[in-house]
Amino acid sequence: MNVDNWMIEESFRNTYSMGFKVKAFLHTEQSKYQKIEVVETESVGKLLLLDGKTMVSEKDEFVYHEVVSHIPYMVSRSCKNVLIIGGGDGGVVREFVKHADIQRIDLVEIDERVIEVSKTYFPECTSGLSDKRVRVLPEDGFAFIKRAKKEYDIIVVDSTDPVDFASGLFTDEFYQDVYNALTDEGIMMNQTENPFLDEWGIKNIYSNMRKVFPVVSSFTAPMLIYPGVYWTFGFSSKKFRPTDLDPAKLQTMTGIQRSLKWYNVDWHKGCFSISNFHKTMIGQE
Amino acid sequence: MNVDNWMIEESFRNTYSMGFKVKAFLHTEQSKYQKIEVVETESVGKLLLLDGKTMVSEKDEFVYHEVVSHIPYMVSRSCKNVLIIGGGDGGVVREFVKHADIQRIDLVEIDERVIEVSKTYFPECTSGLSDKRVRVLPEDGFAFIKRAKKEYDIIVVDSTDPVDFASGLFTDEFYQDVYNALTDEGIMMNQTENPFLDEWGIKNIYSNMRKVFPVVSSFTAPMLIYPGVYWTFGFSSKKFRPTDLDPAKLQTMTGIQRSLKWYNVDWHKGCFSISNFHKTMIGQE
Repeated sequence: MNVDNWMIEESFRNTYSMGFKVKAFLHTEQSKYQKIEVVETESVGKLLLLDGKTMVSEKDEFVYHEVVSHIPYMVSRSCKNVLIIGGGDGGVVREFVKHADIQRIDLVEIDERVIEVSKTYFPECTSGLSDKRVRVLPEDGFAFIKRAKKEYDIIVVDSTDPVDFASGLFTDEFYQDVYNALTDEGIMMNQTENPFLDEWGIKNIYSNMRKVFPVVSSFTAPMLIYPGVYWTFGFSSKKFRPTDLDPAKLQTMTGIQRSLKWYNVDWHKGCFSISNFHKTMIGQE
Repeated sequence: MNVDNWMIEESFRNTYSMGFKVKAFLHTEQSKYQKIEVVETESVGKLLLLDGKTMVSEKDEFVYHEVVSHIPYMVSRSCKNVLIIGGGDGGVVREFVKHADIQRIDLVEIDERVIEVSKTYFPECTSGLSDKRVRVLPEDGFAFIKRAKKEYDIIVVDSTDPVDFASGLFTDEFYQDVYNALTDEGIMMNQTENPFLDEWGIKNIYSNMRKVFPVVSSFTAPMLIYPGVYWTFGFSSKKFRPTDLDPAKLQTMTGIQRSLKWYNVDWHKGCFSISNFHKTMIGQE
């Protein structure tokens, strides 16, 4: 909500808030699916909001986009086809196109307007969309995933919070569809909320992932613009554990990671050694 | 500041805010040094503020207190004497008293009122202060540290932000005094701010620590009540690297860490593998 030129987001039953002072209101529209806003802030640069919830900022977008892409890429053995559900800002695509061995990247974003608005205000995020390996598919992710069978090596569920029409992206039925759409060594990545502010939600998400995937792990990375900042991500896999990196990829990655702002192989190996708090939250022994 | 029953803390030149809805205002006083307040919140339980800045909450205090104590303890080889500068809430002391081989724990807190208020409202934090190995010294930490020579195996600087009278706790002059007060294998731990919101400050802090200590490393842990949540901590050492754990302590720690809410040895080993962003901020190769 907009209060005296501050964008304020309240969470934890509206008892915890974070706010960003606004320098300029750049864009607002009601698309077929949601309210899309872009504001210029003092603290995080341009900020995209969907239905009033913070989605992407210039200042910290690199964190999310690098971790959900390079982690599964480095674990996968043969990574030819990638699917991203949601993620209309294009940031995840931008990271995957850095890997020359990937042949196809499908972006299934239900709301074409998010893509268009991002092209205008976040061109550094959408820069990968023009890569010829990328297909932008303006479809419902739920319907799309049901049709795909053993097609993708990596699927990134780049979703909003588990409320309204995105809540279905956190169910075991959906995870089963993702499982079916993955190859035999496939990996699913998703954002799984803040455990301090959504303890029940996170337990439920991980319980649902475990009903479907034999390997389920979790790590955290900070998202300055998300409520509570301390953000968990899920790594669900049919075969490989998250710290079992593909030896064949290490040398190429050594070169690529010099230009990355967050990801490096050492961090990858360390981030799955999680705290007792984190283990308790996701029900890990 | 208190706005419509919300405690709001603004940072990053007053352009980023976090807020906690207040159920009850429990205590307020002006001590000789600062304004001390305790409020009951919906989201983080009881919350202690000093000069309007969030210090300790019931919900997340375990994170800070466990990481600044058990990490240096596990790296130190002979840990007999511990000094805590600041930390009047007692939470760091509570963690150190869990280790039977520690003989003396000195708590140097300039403001006795913080200790007394904490005893009333945060008894789970102050529970260790009655341990007979603990000396509570109501003194100025700057003066105290200048008198100590090669006396402590671990020194924890449990300070507020680098403003006003606490700013001296982030200078190379102070770090030199800490160095002199440490034994030949001594370790200093300190909180070193949020790199998204205080880039200049954090670069300065780590530069100052490197002027004095041969080993300087950093890790992060979330502090839900601190602005930006993603919090860095410094590990500065005369000899041992932060992941060089004392083999003799591992077995005892296996038992203790079952009852800890955050710390475990695997997390300790992984948390010093930091992101490119974090390395850049602290000037690490």
